[in-house]
Amino acid sequence: MEKKAIATLRVLAVEQIDKAQSGHPGIALGAAPIIYTLYAKVMNIFPGNDNWINRDRFVLAAGHGSALLYSILHLTGFGIMISDLKKFRQYESITPGHPEYRITPGVDTTSGPLGQGIPIGVGMAMAEEYLRKRFNKPLLPLVDHYTFVLCGDGDLQEGVTQEAMSLAGHLRLSRLIVLYDSNDIQLDGTVKDVNTENVAGKYQAMGWNYLYVSDGEDVNTIENAILQSKMSDKPTIIEVKTVIGYGSSMAASHKAHGSPLPHEDVLKMRKALGGDSFEVSGEIYDYYHRLINERNQANYQKWHQTRAVYQKEYPEEFMLFEKTIKDEYEIDFQSLISLVAEASKATREYGGTLINAIGKIHYGLFGGSADLSSSTKVKGVDGDFCVENRLGRNIYFGVREHAMAAIANGLALHSLRPVCSTFFVFSDYMKPAIRMGALMGLPVIYVFTHDSIAVGEDGPTHQPIEQLTMLRSIPNLITIRPADGYETLYAVKTAIETKSTPTAMVLTRQNIPNITNLKAAAALNKGAYVLAYEKNKIDGILIASGSELHLALQAKSVLFKKDYDVRVVSMPSLELFEKQNEDYKNKVLPLKIKVRVAIEMSEGAHLYRYIGPEGKLININKFGLSAPGGQAISAYGFTVENIVNTFIQITNKKS
Amino acid sequence: MEKKAIATLRVLAVEQIDKAQSGHPGIALGAAPIIYTLYAKVMNIFPGNDNWINRDRFVLAAGHGSALLYSILHLTGFGIMISDLKKFRQYESITPGHPEYRITPGVDTTSGPLGQGIPIGVGMAMAEEYLRKRFNKPLLPLVDHYTFVLCGDGDLQEGVTQEAMSLAGHLRLSRLIVLYDSNDIQLDGTVKDVNTENVAGKYQAMGWNYLYVSDGEDVNTIENAILQSKMSDKPTIIEVKTVIGYGSSMAASHKAHGSPLPHEDVLKMRKALGGDSFEVSGEIYDYYHRLINERNQANYQKWHQTRAVYQKEYPEEFMLFEKTIKDEYEIDFQSLISLVAEASKATREYGGTLINAIGKIHYGLFGGSADLSSSTKVKGVDGDFCVENRLGRNIYFGVREHAMAAIANGLALHSLRPVCSTFFVFSDYMKPAIRMGALMGLPVIYVFTHDSIAVGEDGPTHQPIEQLTMLRSIPNLITIRPADGYETLYAVKTAIETKSTPTAMVLTRQNIPNITNLKAAAALNKGAYVLAYEKNKIDGILIASGSELHLALQAKSVLFKKDYDVRVVSMPSLELFEKQNEDYKNKVLPLKIKVRVAIEMSEGAHLYRYIGPEGKLININKFGLSAPGGQAISAYGFTVENIVNTFIQITNKKS
Repeated sequence: MEKKAIATLRVLAVEQIDKAQSGHPGIALGAAPIIYTLYAKVMNIFPGNDNWINRDRFVLAAGHGSALLYSILHLTGFGIMISDLKKFRQYESITPGHPEYRITPGVDTTSGPLGQGIPIGVGMAMAEEYLRKRFNKPLLPLVDHYTFVLCGDGDLQEGVTQEAMSLAGHLRLSRLIVLYDSNDIQLDGTVKDVNTENVAGKYQAMGWNYLYVSDGEDVNTIENAILQSKMSDKPTIIEVKTVIGYGSSMAASHKAHGSPLPHEDVLKMRKALGGDSFEVSGEIYDYYHRLINERNQANYQKWHQTRAVYQKEYPEEFMLFEKTIKDEYEIDFQSLISLVAEASKATREYGGTLINAIGKIHYGLFGGSADLSSSTKVKGVDGDFCVENRLGRNIYFGVREHAMAAIANGLALHSLRPVCSTFFVFSDYMKPAIRMGALMGLPVIYVFTHDSIAVGEDGPTHQPIEQLTMLRSIPNLITIRPADGYETLYAVKTAIETKSTPTAMVLTRQNIPNITNLKAAAALNKGAYVLAYEKNKIDGILIASGSELHLALQAKSVLFKKDYDVRVVSMPSLELFEKQNEDYKNKVLPLKIKVRVAIEMSEGAHLYRYIGPEGKLININKFGLSAPGGQAISAYGFTVENIVNTFIQITNKKS
Repeated sequence: MEKKAIATLRVLAVEQIDKAQSGHPGIALGAAPIIYTLYAKVMNIFPGNDNWINRDRFVLAAGHGSALLYSILHLTGFGIMISDLKKFRQYESITPGHPEYRITPGVDTTSGPLGQGIPIGVGMAMAEEYLRKRFNKPLLPLVDHYTFVLCGDGDLQEGVTQEAMSLAGHLRLSRLIVLYDSNDIQLDGTVKDVNTENVAGKYQAMGWNYLYVSDGEDVNTIENAILQSKMSDKPTIIEVKTVIGYGSSMAASHKAHGSPLPHEDVLKMRKALGGDSFEVSGEIYDYYHRLINERNQANYQKWHQTRAVYQKEYPEEFMLFEKTIKDEYEIDFQSLISLVAEASKATREYGGTLINAIGKIHYGLFGGSADLSSSTKVKGVDGDFCVENRLGRNIYFGVREHAMAAIANGLALHSLRPVCSTFFVFSDYMKPAIRMGALMGLPVIYVFTHDSIAVGEDGPTHQPIEQLTMLRSIPNLITIRPADGYETLYAVKTAIETKSTPTAMVLTRQNIPNITNLKAAAALNKGAYVLAYEKNKIDGILIASGSELHLALQAKSVLFKKDYDVRVVSMPSLELFEKQNEDYKNKVLPLKIKVRVAIEMSEGAHLYRYIGPEGKLININKFGLSAPGGQAISAYGFTVENIVNTFIQITNKKS
């Protein structure tokens, strides 16, 4: 029956791909016994509630194996119907080309691009360690589960995976178990053409427990290896030798990787199994449901009993637990005002102080920096998260920016509110993971400090130029570049209260004066607002954000003396401004006013939208330079004088 | 005397930092004996010609050690004066905060952000292997050198470094020697807080030769380790135990990493050495010059003799060698026209065919794909570069996109013309290295295929949305998105002929019709041109590139029937268009024509610049979807009908 159950998995998978004439049969056939073992024999799951906080997590790092995942989710009762499998990869189906979080019941994460899956698993395992230590009481485990990842050769070649595995080994995340579908083949050819590492030696040296299963068809051995993994005090990687495209005419060839099998192969496999296309026999359904229910129904009920007892015996902790995993903290931002009321300070200082103050109240806030916490000022509370202190909410990620962002996605997917910080220019390293966070709508907070050429002496490799444009171009991400302490307060408030997208804050290294005020800056949540109105008539508009806003204010004064009456608009977040209605937008930036100067120490392409062809953007179209910050700023034209002259120039041109 | 020579190095370094009141004394003090050993005792260099093709290369991966590098370059005679050291990190000096290629004599690469240095070294070592095998004749070695990298703990934590080291081990790049400044400290604290790998075990498992030097002050042992490395048939990593901030009051503390030492410390160190601030005694200059000259003068002269004999005995190969390292091939693009004259084809097919055709003529063209050559169609000629075939110019990078781009920088820095390719959406993974290529002005060619939501079934993780904006925002990078075969031909021509910046080509997965022609498409080098003029009057302009251009052409026909007379502008490269004079720009996009519709299946922010507030951008502001490509395209509004309606709508609004 087990053989038939696995064969059914395989056939359903290749039938999906065959019908769609698109997909990846290789892994679906090769890794079927692994997926079977996990879902049918090992994982603590409850198909009726795919959001159960204490479920074992599963990450299909090799996301191209989606058809296999959908097949097992169907067979184990996760609310995916045969009709859904028939719509594999089709418009508006719940069975997309690669697994997508929030689209398909039972899918714990989006996992399209290779490399992201293992770091996400690392984040989930960290969240589990923390919550287990933070909330469990003797005999009352609210959180007590494993995180499983299925990866392929490609994943392990990705640097972000290597960063995350290095950290996972260091942190001894023993509840993390990676099943490595080792089939010797990758898209362009054989693995040995591109990688000849000693797998066991490498991962053991990185602090991992390594196990080997020589026959990927042998369910018992796979199961035993998983059970053995659970005994280890290290994370485990189980290398399972499989055959790509197992049972097809393309078996063991890279041709099986990414193209549908010959239709004949699919028919032949179906014939061997019996039944019609997409048919599952009653006995197979029964078999899967019995396996799942036998193991899990009791577990699930027991957990609910535990929860009820916990709630009764520890009502306060229970409330805290619920608040934490549901992210339902109410932060009193009024009480934080005193932290930002300085005459002049770097916004990174405000950012760090605020985040840390909130961390003391919000038990879900969890994160740190990629070896730059002394500079970014972001450091979680309760000490450093490490083997000895699972309560520590500061993560020393090491110089692993990409893994930091990818792990943050895993933390958020589990239930926490991750914060990660580094120099703004290094957001480049994190881009793929930031995109994933935005795609999944995860409430990750990125704190990017050392904005612009004002970074100074470290030079062009450390000075962001085009990074603001990069962030602003990512759908579903909110980027905020506050201009002073008050705006930073509201930026943090927006970040904390934004729960369906990530938020990036861009903060200065250098001191800047407090120029807005509590009332004005409250409009930050609208993305842009009038900070200083024209006096009588309106001759034009100056638009700025961040450290340039005070230059705009000064320019306004100078212009006024020269008889130009201008408005200054603070525009900390283009994304938030775009969410406003036309009426508000037109009130801030009246369409009829064509003389507009935007000032931004960045590439700033998105601002063209607001200045029009008659306006002028004072921006930077080249790389930075190594010089003291102030000198760099002047050399690149960010002076009151230049703003004033530019304004007058375009006014004259127009008239 | 050796002790004094090293002390001089150290003092000069900390005096630079002290004067600038900015910089990183920790590594400068700790790694001084390593740098001393390399420059004074090991490296084959000729300070009088820092562009000598056969010099040993040196990559300071830990770029924050710049002050140390500048000190040794001064002492060994590389045309850096004491006056330059005094201007460390100052405006317009040749001694910037982190080493910058083309700014400082003797600096072989820019090396600011951690992680990029080792991959650059890998690229240099690959170039050396190829050229050595390709051109050397018995007893006549034109290319025969080593590549040295000095890295710190941070570098080894970066994923891109891990990717590159994995590949270097696989490829047995035995001429690559990494000196690992192992000082147990990083910016935020100690290394053991974030990394507890078994260093020897890890790198041996990755195919590296590992050596250990327990005392970083012991020049002889360091030298012996290097000599031993040269005997290995693998790349070598030498872990040298050093003390960060050696000899200062901050020694062995992370406080020595990134802030100037107390002024007292600097004075004390100078006092111990003797002399005034920034003073170098005559005997020390003599000592360094004697060491350098003894070893190198003869080598350099001998190489020139070899070159002369080679030129005489193998005149054709010599010409080819010179053409290759100087990138002086003349490609007859006329002869390639037949390759692009299809009725309909995917531009990725043209791209691959053209690059490969040119590769047969151009011996410097070297590259491949990150495990997607079967999809991107880019595959170098003469077989795969591997241990057995150093002549192979196809590189199987494996699923290591970031290292691919970083290694490409190393290949270009050495002397080759690298090509790298992957799916466009994965350009995200390469961003930090693309930026480095642009910053250094390296002529790397990126071939990004599988443009836009037209990718279809693979879904949002595989569909680029914001990547065009990301590329366009990078200074000093040319991005070209050709619309058909003819434009692809000129895109490749532009890429091959552009030698002072990288070029990115963005190509389709799907077939698109040939709609331009040889004469019109020749204007691609101007970035934008009128593909189809209005008939009589001009009612508006449609702007498009890539796969949307043919939709614009169709829309023009439909509009004409409705009595709107429009112009269609093909705009394959915004960067090239911006290089044109105002006159040309105004001829293509007359300022007075306000009714403009730009059509792009991307986030497309840069196009706002060309449409103005009265125009309309048909773009994508959300992530993609899993569905067949054609369906995805229609669902997102990229239809002739929508273009026509949009045009009419804004025309009516205006009137």
